[in-house]
Amino acid sequence: MKFFNSSNKIVLVIEYNGRRYCGFQWQAQLPTVQAELEQAIWKLTGERRRVVAASRTDAGVHAKGQVVSFWTDSALAPRTFVRALNYHLPRDIAVKGACRVKASFDVRRDAVSREYKYYILNSATRSALYEGFACTVPHELDIDMMNKACKSIEGEHDFASFATSLGRMRSTVRTVYKAWVTRVDNVVIFDMMANSFLPHQVRNTVGLLVRVGSGRVGLDEFQKIMEAKIPGLAGPAAPPCGLYLTKVNYPYDLELEA
Amino acid sequence: MKFFNSSNKIVLVIEYNGRRYCGFQWQAQLPTVQAELEQAIWKLTGERRRVVAASRTDAGVHAKGQVVSFWTDSALAPRTFVRALNYHLPRDIAVKGACRVKASFDVRRDAVSREYKYYILNSATRSALYEGFACTVPHELDIDMMNKACKSIEGEHDFASFATSLGRMRSTVRTVYKAWVTRVDNVVIFDMMANSFLPHQVRNTVGLLVRVGSGRVGLDEFQKIMEAKIPGLAGPAAPPCGLYLTKVNYPYDLELEA
Repeated sequence: MKFFNSSNKIVLVIEYNGRRYCGFQWQAQLPTVQAELEQAIWKLTGERRRVVAASRTDAGVHAKGQVVSFWTDSALAPRTFVRALNYHLPRDIAVKGACRVKASFDVRRDAVSREYKYYILNSATRSALYEGFACTVPHELDIDMMNKACKSIEGEHDFASFATSLGRMRSTVRTVYKAWVTRVDNVVIFDMMANSFLPHQVRNTVGLLVRVGSGRVGLDEFQKIMEAKIPGLAGPAAPPCGLYLTKVNYPYDLELEA
Repeated sequence: MKFFNSSNKIVLVIEYNGRRYCGFQWQAQLPTVQAELEQAIWKLTGERRRVVAASRTDAGVHAKGQVVSFWTDSALAPRTFVRALNYHLPRDIAVKGACRVKASFDVRRDAVSREYKYYILNSATRSALYEGFACTVPHELDIDMMNKACKSIEGEHDFASFATSLGRMRSTVRTVYKAWVTRVDNVVIFDMMANSFLPHQVRNTVGLLVRVGSGRVGLDEFQKIMEAKIPGLAGPAAPPCGLYLTKVNYPYDLELEA
């Protein structure tokens, strides 16, 4: 095993259309974003390297600003990694920027917050162009009510009710910095920024918010579901196709080359 | 042949992702939007009917507001056509609205204007999410210069230089009501509204405008190309993936049901 010095770690900001993939994380025999990235790195450098992501996305979930890292012995410049990996990667995965970081940098632990967006097409009919890029809600949505519910999830709370399962998780307390809903014509966009997220937290939040916007769940009930701290109570989750990991924030600038 | 009364003609507003299709118009053995629509109508009504479009789009070109018509003996309500055709159509074609029109209504000849949008991703790197939905231009674009060039195509002009071929066309004079460019972050959107369009006119216009925005073609040269009236002179055309037929306008409201 070679000694890795500070310039041997590369960070990439990547974008992907999650439609064809069984999520970010590697799974035997299944198409994953991680497997595609590792194959592209192997094609470029001849190295078999493990890629680590800041936030693992589920099957069908998209990313605009996923952050990943890997070790390399290659001396290629970051912008050469961008160009060359984009050549080797399939068209539904793209590298948007790259930089070298010090060895101690951890894409997951050093991240101070993550941002997600969820797109809802609010239309009586399905859409051909938003197919796979937004979920469709046919009935009218009360954006004001949805935003009132959003206010109650901002801050530090136990979000157990918004997790599908807890697994070996030590704590279900998270800090939501921002959560809000906007409408642009017939597209309703939900924005959420938190220090980190529980499994399916955004999709369960959207599922419950849509029921609030439809008048099927009141603000009192929303509050009670949250306070119950029972895994899965907020579900069913909104479908993955509307979800985008948009940004991962670090305490310092990544100084990306593109 | 049955006599068609005024309630036997149906108009649909449709949306499609043109990626998988060799254009709107029927071609033997090839996937076309027209063939899919005619098959869905056959599945629903048992009738083999020809579908006519207001504007024929090329291979890979998308539509948000294409307008088509067909004859039917079916007594189904327009909104039932919307629901049922959306069930039978593939996911990349969607009916957004339907209405019955009088027999004399002609989707093509009665249209007073058409609107197209062209999306350019102005980014140094390719995009995974815009793949097939926008063309990528890596260098900086001067939006002001592009808008100055747009001003010179507004009004009634002979647009021969912006047509790829003239075929059996009688006149290459068209009236452009509006042409303008806007930037939203790193997406540059070109809007064009005209009474009707020559073959590849929007894509040739965008191709030339991008060369203006890049500083490779000046406003004088733009003007000269236009005045030369030589088919194909404005090209090469911008790729089809960035083009959307957004709206077809009629002198009266279509009173669509959805």
